[in-house]
Amino acid sequence: MSESAVSETRTESDSFGPIEVRADAYWGAQTQRSIGNFPIGNETMPVPLIHALGIVKHAAAIVNERSGLDERLARAIQNAAEQVANGEYDDQFPLVVWQTGSGTQSNMNTNEVIAGRANELLTGTRGGKDPVHPNDHVNRGQSSNDTFPTAMHIAAGREIASLLVPALEHLRGALEAKSEEFASIVKIGRTHMQDATPVTLGQEFGGYARMIEDGIARIEATLPRVYRLAQGGTAVGTGLNSAPGFAEDFAAEVARLTGLPFETAPNKFEALATHDTMVELSGALNVLAVSLNKIANDLRLLGSGPRSGLGELQLPENEPGSSIMPGKVNPTQCEALTMVAAQVMGNHITVTVGGAQGHMELNVFKPVIAYNVLQSIRLIADASVSFTDRCVDGITPNETRIAELLERSLMLVTALVPEIGYDKATEIAKKAHKEGTTLVESALTLGYVTEERFREIVRPENMIG
Amino acid sequence: MSESAVSETRTESDSFGPIEVRADAYWGAQTQRSIGNFPIGNETMPVPLIHALGIVKHAAAIVNERSGLDERLARAIQNAAEQVANGEYDDQFPLVVWQTGSGTQSNMNTNEVIAGRANELLTGTRGGKDPVHPNDHVNRGQSSNDTFPTAMHIAAGREIASLLVPALEHLRGALEAKSEEFASIVKIGRTHMQDATPVTLGQEFGGYARMIEDGIARIEATLPRVYRLAQGGTAVGTGLNSAPGFAEDFAAEVARLTGLPFETAPNKFEALATHDTMVELSGALNVLAVSLNKIANDLRLLGSGPRSGLGELQLPENEPGSSIMPGKVNPTQCEALTMVAAQVMGNHITVTVGGAQGHMELNVFKPVIAYNVLQSIRLIADASVSFTDRCVDGITPNETRIAELLERSLMLVTALVPEIGYDKATEIAKKAHKEGTTLVESALTLGYVTEERFREIVRPENMIG
Amino acid sequence: MSESAVSETRTESDSFGPIEVRADAYWGAQTQRSIGNFPIGNETMPVPLIHALGIVKHAAAIVNERSGLDERLARAIQNAAEQVANGEYDDQFPLVVWQTGSGTQSNMNTNEVIAGRANELLTGTRGGKDPVHPNDHVNRGQSSNDTFPTAMHIAAGREIASLLVPALEHLRGALEAKSEEFASIVKIGRTHMQDATPVTLGQEFGGYARMIEDGIARIEATLPRVYRLAQGGTAVGTGLNSAPGFAEDFAAEVARLTGLPFETAPNKFEALATHDTMVELSGALNVLAVSLNKIANDLRLLGSGPRSGLGELQLPENEPGSSIMPGKVNPTQCEALTMVAAQVMGNHITVTVGGAQGHMELNVFKPVIAYNVLQSIRLIADASVSFTDRCVDGITPNETRIAELLERSLMLVTALVPEIGYDKATEIAKKAHKEGTTLVESALTLGYVTEERFREIVRPENMIG
Amino acid sequence: MSESAVSETRTESDSFGPIEVRADAYWGAQTQRSIGNFPIGNETMPVPLIHALGIVKHAAAIVNERSGLDERLARAIQNAAEQVANGEYDDQFPLVVWQTGSGTQSNMNTNEVIAGRANELLTGTRGGKDPVHPNDHVNRGQSSNDTFPTAMHIAAGREIASLLVPALEHLRGALEAKSEEFASIVKIGRTHMQDATPVTLGQEFGGYARMIEDGIARIEATLPRVYRLAQGGTAVGTGLNSAPGFAEDFAAEVARLTGLPFETAPNKFEALATHDTMVELSGALNVLAVSLNKIANDLRLLGSGPRSGLGELQLPENEPGSSIMPGKVNPTQCEALTMVAAQVMGNHITVTVGGAQGHMELNVFKPVIAYNVLQSIRLIADASVSFTDRCVDGITPNETRIAELLERSLMLVTALVPEIGYDKATEIAKKAHKEGTTLVESALTLGYVTEERFREIVRPENMIG
Repeated sequence: MSESAVSETRTESDSFGPIEVRADAYWGAQTQRSIGNFPIGNETMPVPLIHALGIVKHAAAIVNERSGLDERLARAIQNAAEQVANGEYDDQFPLVVWQTGSGTQSNMNTNEVIAGRANELLTGTRGGKDPVHPNDHVNRGQSSNDTFPTAMHIAAGREIASLLVPALEHLRGALEAKSEEFASIVKIGRTHMQDATPVTLGQEFGGYARMIEDGIARIEATLPRVYRLAQGGTAVGTGLNSAPGFAEDFAAEVARLTGLPFETAPNKFEALATHDTMVELSGALNVLAVSLNKIANDLRLLGSGPRSGLGELQLPENEPGSSIMPGKVNPTQCEALTMVAAQVMGNHITVTVGGAQGHMELNVFKPVIAYNVLQSIRLIADASVSFTDRCVDGITPNETRIAELLERSLMLVTALVPEIGYDKATEIAKKAHKEGTTLVESALTLGYVTEERFREIVRPENMIG
Repeated sequence: MSESAVSETRTESDSFGPIEVRADAYWGAQTQRSIGNFPIGNETMPVPLIHALGIVKHAAAIVNERSGLDERLARAIQNAAEQVANGEYDDQFPLVVWQTGSGTQSNMNTNEVIAGRANELLTGTRGGKDPVHPNDHVNRGQSSNDTFPTAMHIAAGREIASLLVPALEHLRGALEAKSEEFASIVKIGRTHMQDATPVTLGQEFGGYARMIEDGIARIEATLPRVYRLAQGGTAVGTGLNSAPGFAEDFAAEVARLTGLPFETAPNKFEALATHDTMVELSGALNVLAVSLNKIANDLRLLGSGPRSGLGELQLPENEPGSSIMPGKVNPTQCEALTMVAAQVMGNHITVTVGGAQGHMELNVFKPVIAYNVLQSIRLIADASVSFTDRCVDGITPNETRIAELLERSLMLVTALVPEIGYDKATEIAKKAHKEGTTLVESALTLGYVTEERFREIVRPENMIG
Repeated sequence: MSESAVSETRTESDSFGPIEVRADAYWGAQTQRSIGNFPIGNETMPVPLIHALGIVKHAAAIVNERSGLDERLARAIQNAAEQVANGEYDDQFPLVVWQTGSGTQSNMNTNEVIAGRANELLTGTRGGKDPVHPNDHVNRGQSSNDTFPTAMHIAAGREIASLLVPALEHLRGALEAKSEEFASIVKIGRTHMQDATPVTLGQEFGGYARMIEDGIARIEATLPRVYRLAQGGTAVGTGLNSAPGFAEDFAAEVARLTGLPFETAPNKFEALATHDTMVELSGALNVLAVSLNKIANDLRLLGSGPRSGLGELQLPENEPGSSIMPGKVNPTQCEALTMVAAQVMGNHITVTVGGAQGHMELNVFKPVIAYNVLQSIRLIADASVSFTDRCVDGITPNETRIAELLERSLMLVTALVPEIGYDKATEIAKKAHKEGTTLVESALTLGYVTEERFREIVRPENMIG
Repeated sequence: MSESAVSETRTESDSFGPIEVRADAYWGAQTQRSIGNFPIGNETMPVPLIHALGIVKHAAAIVNERSGLDERLARAIQNAAEQVANGEYDDQFPLVVWQTGSGTQSNMNTNEVIAGRANELLTGTRGGKDPVHPNDHVNRGQSSNDTFPTAMHIAAGREIASLLVPALEHLRGALEAKSEEFASIVKIGRTHMQDATPVTLGQEFGGYARMIEDGIARIEATLPRVYRLAQGGTAVGTGLNSAPGFAEDFAAEVARLTGLPFETAPNKFEALATHDTMVELSGALNVLAVSLNKIANDLRLLGSGPRSGLGELQLPENEPGSSIMPGKVNPTQCEALTMVAAQVMGNHITVTVGGAQGHMELNVFKPVIAYNVLQSIRLIADASVSFTDRCVDGITPNETRIAELLERSLMLVTALVPEIGYDKATEIAKKAHKEGTTLVESALTLGYVTEERFREIVRPENMIG
């Protein structure tokens, strides 16, 4: 910052005394103090959480207006809060995740920015505590301890509704479409990475689609608890200093503002002292990571080649694959997706470890839990869309290769078991394997079945259910 | 084994040739081969899984009888399978978890023991393949690939119903009873491990009870998927070699035998190739671990002392606590419970890592997933009961201590905020803290409120919601 | 237990009063109380830890004898302790892992069994506290708080030396032997699961051997800290009630008894209050899990087939692979090994979570940490040996298949880059891929190189470094 | 972007054809393609990794110049690469972590930016491939597959040396200073969160200092492997297309440029196909997370209060603690640190999961591994410094409180054990506990010791070793 810039500050204050703040900033003393006190990393509080804090303050000011907050102040707060919720002041939230474990400083950052903006709306002068005070008015009836977890649930709920579920539906739809497209392509199945009895390519994609469908159901199974808001518990869950009915009215306003069925948490002590529901949600995201890892891994195995792999699928070519090997094309969307999966699995541990260590009335791992859950949601959503659009949609089967591999499979012998029994069928397969012959040759040599009967029974197209 | 013992064997055989088996054993060649091939650790396949395999074979034989399996053989299989399910042959399942990833060898162990027992019932001679053949009759219409995951779901479902949910209900009930018992004990709240505004001891226990109630709901939210059975998919999900209707009829029989609403999985490819539902269930167990860790940790903090801790609670004394410090009593049930929590969190990673690495038509981490999920269920259930009976139930409050701590708290100043504002209230608290005085003294010195008004407002019993 | 069995007890007592103990048991009141107080799971304390506790008591009695413990008692303790260390009384340690977090009850179990056996040696009467008292004599100068972590380090150190490192050396040796055996087999390399430039099969196995070599080095890098013993810290690290020089003399005796360079920990507070070194060791085991997972996964990919996979390797056939697909053979040792890897990764989280939550002077996750670390060591060791003997040693290359895949690879074009540049080389590869021709055909058609020059440059055997 | 801005582009091309790039950008076609192909999250490649890629290209160009790369081009590349290494072009690296798993696109981003800048230096025109070609010149003798892991090791090595170890030394020094400062303050010890025998406050801090000292040693134990560079392995480890001696000369240049003892990896196959060493390093970071979690947790427990906690320590007050509770001050640095610890533990799982899933010649989880390891290093380093400066350094003991708690402790009875035995000492403590008396009163009533002898033996200052 240039010298002149340094001089362009104003003085803000809190119970620790005065402190200089950039003149153009909306925030106040506590935000500024946090900037100085936590020079750790560069992971700022997730934007969806900031927007959710805007919604919290908006809804609170509506309810507070009804219970006596001066209308002029209330309206200014509502306007400013709505702007924060809409992302107009994202650059006014410089604080990092690695701060107070209750998120107090980000709550105060929000209180200060909204007060600072409301004061600007009312007086033309940015910042300060007059006429709108960050604590007494913006934070009225609230504590960081209920506000921050409320914002966590609102942010998660909104990201799930607007980002995650649509992305997963997009992927599921694409997988289902491929399942139908490939319904009649009979191919070799593989278990233990070894040749097994036939399946259709459509069945494989149908399994993948089902995994995502179930994954969506798992996310949705957590929503009844995600939609519960801690607001109204204030400092320790008792609701001290919040007006009667505040919790319920607040939740109704949030539901109205977001269009999602948020409601007040039935037990505020649980809602402040734990983040069990975030751990639960993270667990559902973890299952998606597991599913996506398997799907991506399968597709790159089936698409391995071009000449020395399984080669049953052709994945779209999106970019040059190698800085040294000319013409190489790699399953890069699969790789991005599996890296996302690894990240989500790790994030889940962070959320678990943080969730397990609450003390008494408050869990103080709130910011790190919020950061990881929201990152997991975002990454799964984004990567699912990219994977759909740049990989799944463009997959084409190599039908020649598929037919070739199917034909020479020894596991077709399984169809003979009901006819000749497991032990004789084994003998046929082992002989063919050892001598490099076809199954039918082996079967006839052993004399366990006639050629006619063999050809009647051992038909891949009849072995797929 | 003595020399004479060595000679007491019989010869069994499989496609790899003949092999000697202990004469008194019911198992056959494939089990014996697995004993030799996997000398790894000593973790044998979990007993609930063995019993579930017994149920699988029992149900399959009932359905197979209807579709043509010789009645005499079918009935012998059913009898033998029921005995396995009832735990009468637990010692006939010597195989370890660290075997084939499909659990094939434990499926074959089951097939062989049931065939061996059925043959004994029919002929008086133990073991062998005649008249009942392990593959052709006991395993008829099945593959390890659908049998083993079916047994995993049956075992998990039964352990949840018979062990886990009752144990959690037991704990929840005890916590709720304490919540009611302690409803009128007002105490200091603590956030950030620092004094905060008051709560009742009943509210704290009510929060714990809610955590367990939600934890039960989370387990139950997974059941629709846990109750889905892979059986009928056979080798790769297509159902090759299983009779039409087998899957549905089988599930109905299992539902009847277990009294639980098992049904056939809607997509057999998903059911063989993934264990997403086991990862999901493990995730719900992981939330319980997180909850239990927090509860146990809180209780040992509140019970810390006897003279230099928080000392608000007295935990039951169950045993001498120290081999060197006479008279020491420790929160040992809390410690056992938090160790169980750590185990369950780790098991969850094992299940996640295994679940993520399925290839094509089959996930081959089945035994390790089963082992970890069933261990987590068992440990949470057992530890919850022990914790309830030997800790929660016997907790008594130290009311003198609780009152003493409450009285001198500075955070009672929060009640003044609506009256005099955040900044003045802060001044009062800081002054009292600095000078070691009471809040009322500080307030009066500063002249922000009259003594009468102070005593009217700052009443802990009115600050608890 | 039958009624008569019930009556066959003797009365033992502790500060909680008298309690009935099985007459044939060596243990006393505290062990018996723990059996009743912790009916959780069935995971008993690991046997190597019991043996290590025997060594601790043996060494302590030797040192105590020098500092005044009655020689007759001291010798009896030494004899009894040695028997425990040698495994003669494994059945006298019925306590589970899920007990006091300091392992106090297993320390007392050891004290009681040794006292009970020493008394038997001295008086002919089993059990009791006279003349040898479990606390005053066997536990003299010790606390559970230093004894148990000491036993953890001794057990880990011994298992590493006797089991883990030899097993890993065995595997490394086998991989190196294969590396030499396969040194001249040129094959296609694969990156991103896509064809890449050539390598030798020997180079692949050489990479695996290196991974294990580094893995051994990582384990050994932890030993300086594993060899540090907490003994002498007694209850809180200060060494209260232990004689001057006890810590050093004790460590010297343990070093002598075990043949391993154990020494006294430089800071006893760290040694009681943390298990950072166990977390470190678990981290080194975790790297081995990662390495083994990769190796096993590669081998099953390279061995996939027999007819529809990569098919470059033939893995030994150890048992029938399928209960439904006749003749199927699966990479079962790879599967056992990858399941072990998943378990070890999960165990690492358990150890991490337990290690992170020590309070003040004592970490009370000792038994669960010991259980997981020792299980990880055992499983990696056993599985490495089994994998070596039943998989690696028997691997044979399918040279025909390897040559066939190599020949048709497009990535051989990379050798042309230094001659004609990346862009032209890319054009050649892409054209060949698109048209299904060979590289040389494509190159000649494009006119970027003469046939002679092509054949001079593009020679796999010159592309392997 | 405004319409006019859109028109300000230039055309770049790669093997996929032409593509428009912002006119002011230095990057080329492949970077631009990656921007379009991976719209996933917003986590860009870590800056230390970009700088390390600059060092790689710098060193490579020096070595390539010696082996025939045109001097004019070589020098321009060296200058441009040095600028990248110095952070002058950080804004030219827009690619996210979620890209190709080999980091190919970030390697190409580096090649393109350096070529683009070198061309600007040589011709005045930014970008393009002439005269300096991104692949043929900047990437000469290299592959992404060796370049990216090399940059990972360089980045990790530099961050450890410049950031992590100094930060840890800073913390260790502060803890040791406190250990000395508090050496004579005798206080109650606590085990199982229960009163135990005395320690000094200095001993507690000495334990913490030791943990950090060991933590540094653990990081340093990994360095021999972190200092190994993959460069020279090129595409698959064979070194195809790199000049003889390139690997060794390159490593020597990197050592010179960084001042750190980097050397060429002894086995390039291991170095490309695995990131075992990153998993190992992450494991050492994980131990630090465990240590820091314990220290921070202890300090907030010891500092709990101000009036209802243990209250032995006063932690510095850095900011207002609550938006609702006036005057509240919280252990915020402890909270930031424990959140960092949770993040690092989770990151470790991500690294483990990614590390375990390499296929054949290449591990394709490189970017996510790099991102997590570098984040963990940065967070531990930053948080350790902040914790030292804003918490540890300012800690003061509350000596009155400490003395008060010590005096009334019952565990001082332990000092009597060598005199009167464990059982009688237990009786004294239990009686005092039950009746709320002092130890001496209880001892005299029971008549087990004279008052004189009691006062001689039971002296806390003699019980601290």
